[in-house]
Amino acid sequence: MSVLTEPFDLTASLAHSAERVEQVLDAITADKPLPGETRRPARLVAAMRHALLAGGKRFRPFLVVECARLFRPDDIEEDGLWRVAAAVECLHTYSLIHDDLPAMDDDDLRRGKPTVHRAFDEATAILAGDALLTLAFDMLAHDDSHPDPAVRADLVAVLARACGVGGMAGGQILDLAAESDKPDADEVRTIQLMKTGALFAAACEMGALWAGAGKDDRAALADYGRMLGLAFQIADDLIDVHATPEMAGKATGKDAGRGKATFVSVLGADLAHDLLGRSVADSELCLARFGDAAQGLVAAARFAASRNR
Amino acid sequence: MSVLTEPFDLTASLAHSAERVEQVLDAITADKPLPGETRRPARLVAAMRHALLAGGKRFRPFLVVECARLFRPDDIEEDGLWRVAAAVECLHTYSLIHDDLPAMDDDDLRRGKPTVHRAFDEATAILAGDALLTLAFDMLAHDDSHPDPAVRADLVAVLARACGVGGMAGGQILDLAAESDKPDADEVRTIQLMKTGALFAAACEMGALWAGAGKDDRAALADYGRMLGLAFQIADDLIDVHATPEMAGKATGKDAGRGKATFVSVLGADLAHDLLGRSVADSELCLARFGDAAQGLVAAARFAASRNR
Repeated sequence: MSVLTEPFDLTASLAHSAERVEQVLDAITADKPLPGETRRPARLVAAMRHALLAGGKRFRPFLVVECARLFRPDDIEEDGLWRVAAAVECLHTYSLIHDDLPAMDDDDLRRGKPTVHRAFDEATAILAGDALLTLAFDMLAHDDSHPDPAVRADLVAVLARACGVGGMAGGQILDLAAESDKPDADEVRTIQLMKTGALFAAACEMGALWAGAGKDDRAALADYGRMLGLAFQIADDLIDVHATPEMAGKATGKDAGRGKATFVSVLGADLAHDLLGRSVADSELCLARFGDAAQGLVAAARFAASRNR
Repeated sequence: MSVLTEPFDLTASLAHSAERVEQVLDAITADKPLPGETRRPARLVAAMRHALLAGGKRFRPFLVVECARLFRPDDIEEDGLWRVAAAVECLHTYSLIHDDLPAMDDDDLRRGKPTVHRAFDEATAILAGDALLTLAFDMLAHDDSHPDPAVRADLVAVLARACGVGGMAGGQILDLAAESDKPDADEVRTIQLMKTGALFAAACEMGALWAGAGKDDRAALADYGRMLGLAFQIADDLIDVHATPEMAGKATGKDAGRGKATFVSVLGADLAHDLLGRSVADSELCLARFGDAAQGLVAAARFAASRNR
């Protein structure tokens, strides 16, 4: 395991990560059909690209790569790893498109741009989400992602398990129900662990998997990702309360407006802020076993906490 | 390659296939969370099961198993094969749920029961589709499906490629656009090859893959599936014109009502019927290399043609 001697420059590292991920996303959503495809309809491609290439921190792909760095620090520029990272971003983007739909959170703005169903139409948005979800698995299963098919199958298995009925999709239905169910803080925690924590955990575990990490290291990184996802969600809830739409790049104050159950609504902003600090600390504890090599992941956790008020 | 000496009993074989597939679907959508899952929300599970366990011919899973039979006739009762078959049905069911949504075809009835968004609500239907799409890949990637991870990765790759932007999802957006674009017969053929043919082709190729078939055999069976899918779609279009809702288990006459481009609308019923016959014949030609062992697949193609008027 290599020990980095330079202090970790999170800003530069996130920018590099975003650039690499966007190159993959741009290439994988080109008009030209891939082998086995008939035609890529222009409108669907445009909708996918509208959502995928709208900027964003690319924080989940960054986690994939930083977790891989722990085990194969000399190989993190390999194209296969960035495909895996980009696949996670496709999965995340599908979830944003579907969450924004009129039948779900009914949002008009995302990353400062019209949501897909506003820029195109509802049917196109549903299909763009479906196609991105499918594309994520296509990318992972293809041998460009990793030469070992056992790794590719595991990458698919981890991502699928995290995002289905018992993970992200399940979290979203609980989140919608919570608008009327008035859950307590424990239930909000469960919802957010499913809705956000599961994909963060999967991203971390997938980076470790790609790099050949053992079972215990994978589990520690999945735990780190889960706690970080919780912190990230609490920070988002605080942004919804404190930020202007211009700052957030999306509508704010909507959670309270629709009676959404958030950490802020069940705990109040001060206790939510305390919980944010504790979740970040919990996530860092999971990294102890990796020593200084994990400084990028430590910095990521602190970033998650600091991006609100 | 074994040669079946008994005449192939399609009805009994379809019934057996449906029973085995439904056992897998029932088990895989149980309430209890799988390892790596947090909780399976009751409402989402109910919506998935409403759509999955509503009967249906289970024709695509049947194709998976019949294609595997060509290469490993003694192993077709293995549980792993039926998981693969059931995964294809999950994928198909997701597409039905999303196609039925108000923003798409806006259908109230499917297999004689209310569609998911009518029985539950629109958000639940979107998420049930998402969760079934994700579940299909979860099932394929898990080592219960096949002991060889290279086969599992290939199963995921084939299914994902068939169902994404350049396949099924792309076909659906072209189909929606065709309501106003008034495509010609060639374009309708392309749309239906993507919307229906791609998944039929994938089902056949996946069965062959599971059973260790070589590249040429896989390609022949994919071609068979593609032609059969086309025949199946033409038969569906004819049913929409000729059948009552009671016969079809869903609303009929709707294609013409909404100006949908179908083989019947661009060719007329008689020419569409001729094309159906030719597609079935084309599909049978792809089976020549397999001799008598393919009699189940030949019977399936004839069944697809005979189930209308």
